[in-house]
Amino acid sequence: MEKRVVRVGLMGFGTVGTGVVRIISAHQEDLQKQTGLGIEIKKILVQDAEKARSIRSMENMLTTDPAELLENPDIDVIVEVIGGISPAKEYILGALEHGKHVVTANKDLMALHGAEILSKAQEKGCDVFYEASVAGGIPILRALVEGFSSDRITKMMGIVNGTTNYILTKMSQEGAEYADVLKEAQALGYAEANPTSDVEGFDAARKMAILATLGFRVPMKLEDVDVKGISSVSKEDIAYGKQLGYEVKLLGLARRDGEAVEVSVQPTMVPKSHPLASVNGVFNAVYVHGEAVGETMFYGPGAGELPTATAVVSDLVTVVKNMSLGVNGRGMVAPYKEKILKDDSQKLSKYFLRIVVADKRGVLAKITQMLADKNISLEQVIQQPYNNGSQAEIIMITHLSSKSDMDSVRKDMEQMEIITEVKSCYRVEGGDQ
Amino acid sequence: MEKRVVRVGLMGFGTVGTGVVRIISAHQEDLQKQTGLGIEIKKILVQDAEKARSIRSMENMLTTDPAELLENPDIDVIVEVIGGISPAKEYILGALEHGKHVVTANKDLMALHGAEILSKAQEKGCDVFYEASVAGGIPILRALVEGFSSDRITKMMGIVNGTTNYILTKMSQEGAEYADVLKEAQALGYAEANPTSDVEGFDAARKMAILATLGFRVPMKLEDVDVKGISSVSKEDIAYGKQLGYEVKLLGLARRDGEAVEVSVQPTMVPKSHPLASVNGVFNAVYVHGEAVGETMFYGPGAGELPTATAVVSDLVTVVKNMSLGVNGRGMVAPYKEKILKDDSQKLSKYFLRIVVADKRGVLAKITQMLADKNISLEQVIQQPYNNGSQAEIIMITHLSSKSDMDSVRKDMEQMEIITEVKSCYRVEGGDQ
Repeated sequence: MEKRVVRVGLMGFGTVGTGVVRIISAHQEDLQKQTGLGIEIKKILVQDAEKARSIRSMENMLTTDPAELLENPDIDVIVEVIGGISPAKEYILGALEHGKHVVTANKDLMALHGAEILSKAQEKGCDVFYEASVAGGIPILRALVEGFSSDRITKMMGIVNGTTNYILTKMSQEGAEYADVLKEAQALGYAEANPTSDVEGFDAARKMAILATLGFRVPMKLEDVDVKGISSVSKEDIAYGKQLGYEVKLLGLARRDGEAVEVSVQPTMVPKSHPLASVNGVFNAVYVHGEAVGETMFYGPGAGELPTATAVVSDLVTVVKNMSLGVNGRGMVAPYKEKILKDDSQKLSKYFLRIVVADKRGVLAKITQMLADKNISLEQVIQQPYNNGSQAEIIMITHLSSKSDMDSVRKDMEQMEIITEVKSCYRVEGGDQ
Repeated sequence: MEKRVVRVGLMGFGTVGTGVVRIISAHQEDLQKQTGLGIEIKKILVQDAEKARSIRSMENMLTTDPAELLENPDIDVIVEVIGGISPAKEYILGALEHGKHVVTANKDLMALHGAEILSKAQEKGCDVFYEASVAGGIPILRALVEGFSSDRITKMMGIVNGTTNYILTKMSQEGAEYADVLKEAQALGYAEANPTSDVEGFDAARKMAILATLGFRVPMKLEDVDVKGISSVSKEDIAYGKQLGYEVKLLGLARRDGEAVEVSVQPTMVPKSHPLASVNGVFNAVYVHGEAVGETMFYGPGAGELPTATAVVSDLVTVVKNMSLGVNGRGMVAPYKEKILKDDSQKLSKYFLRIVVADKRGVLAKITQMLADKNISLEQVIQQPYNNGSQAEIIMITHLSSKSDMDSVRKDMEQMEIITEVKSCYRVEGGDQ
């Protein structure tokens, strides 16, 4: 099946779509050298064909009718950069149904319906690649599937949402409050007008579900991910964290002990000496621990027109190489391990606790006794006056404790008369490897 | 060409070879799931078949005769982990001649004779993969060849030698002298009895030649790399660097401006805010800047039995997948761009200069004038008493300057009567992107 030119149907012509067109046209010669074939954009699906575009030369390819791409026998590959679930899902399934290969940047779709899409692709012998769906410009999915194919990955940690990392970095560097930094981020375009999906951790959770599926070869679903966002992180939490040697990050965690796995996204105290602690601003990073390889980390831009478009076009290059070799549909390994989720008693972590108590003699003793009764011991404690000395504030870092014990402690604490308020409770990275 | 089991001939049974055997046997089921084929070690070439081995079960596979692997029709793939140029080169060429695929961890060989080996592989339709040759456990070669296939890489910087990074990290953290730390590193096994290849930068140069060839798709040779080692780095250089906001790293640099390239390995002042500055101890990292993707970095173990063996077995998995698809010999893109090396006037960098001068009025003015005459201006200057005040020490960071101008300034400085000694001169990272 030697063809001189591979013909692409592009769905979506926003920032990423524009980047895809620019890269393909700028690197035509290099791409041809690598793949042996030319790459040509044949049709572009847009919502409004009359809208002014930054790339004028493509105007005659625009269409608002998806069938002109999906049912077009002249199109070999569909590149989907519309985003969202519907109609992207119908388009992609339609493309596969017509035997077209697919490259997508759609994390929402792959996190929710990846299994269905990959199984349709397998049935049709088509490629589906989605490197751009996680950590934009970082080729992390390839690393998991190929670079570590001979290893057993035990832990992945990701700063995979640029908006929240920008906000937490600003809060840390400037001692600013969450609400103020969020407003600033919205003004700068780093956060959306409705920031819920980012700040509540849902975006990061989608990416962690994709990473965990590939890294552990277990079919993880979005609802398997414990999610907590950053909207309740205060500047005091960050300041106390720093004092104790930590930076607060919205950390995706995927961990495997034996065959049991856990995946979460939550604000986490990361030791300053850990390479993830110095990943700042809108940058993303994914830390991977493998039994044989040990510690590795991949760092880069998590979003942006050109980084995301680079990942999309690199996937497209893989599709084109596969076409010229006649081996499409064999690239990704479908998850083949049974999903065994940890229960909360198996999720071990250190915790950061900040509580306000009545400033009475013996309060700290009562609290540590209560923790000891739940098998929780302390690594660090700070007690200091609060509210002009009428109360005290206690900041604790625990040793490893189970999530169930910690949840139960928090419930008990809310009932204890001497405790005025449980201000915050965060996972602390470390102590488990 | 469906086979049930792929049969491997292993050349070398030291630490990496042992790791390869361990990983293949521990992950047999996973490997089979991924590749559809089993992987079996058939023969192991050793120097001494009588020597005691940590893996006893392999004893009946040992041989001292390379022909038992190279001419064995039952062997499909040769894994070479002997190291060095000869006889590894003859073995690999012999394996290819017999139509066997090759996986190697041999940076010396690939840096010096990579072109010849890859061209023989192409002629015979065989795979040659060598991920383990650069930065051990970090899958950086795959990232360059596949992950960034659609981008144009403009700059790569690597901390690619663990021994020197361990020494510089210790010197920085403890204010220790080079010679003392080297001794300690030798005692701990982090440096060899004859450390020349590491400390003089030759090992790093080989890896940078491999990275530059793949990243720029230009056939770089080892002799194209400017090399300077760390044996002359003093604790004072490191202390002044810190004071000015830098860490000293032995940095491999591969940079492209237009079509002209430069590759060097030299002690470099890296700004503390740069992600490479916090890569410490025996860890390696490769920073990649692409026109579209921007900044990315890959971090991990640069050596060690299991990390290196992981990279070797992951390459083996790729060979096996290619065998089951019948597409061997198509994996690596041969360099196709003409090599255009920059001359020294095109190599622009900031520089750190430390000189000792007579403590006379007007000395600094004379020196800055002399620099200005060579188009070199200063970004930072520290002057302070030296040798009990009888002399002065001047530490300077320049703005961007060409290597030729800086070389000429250093020559002139050695002739100037007011300058007692040019203590050190290092490249300073930054200012060029």
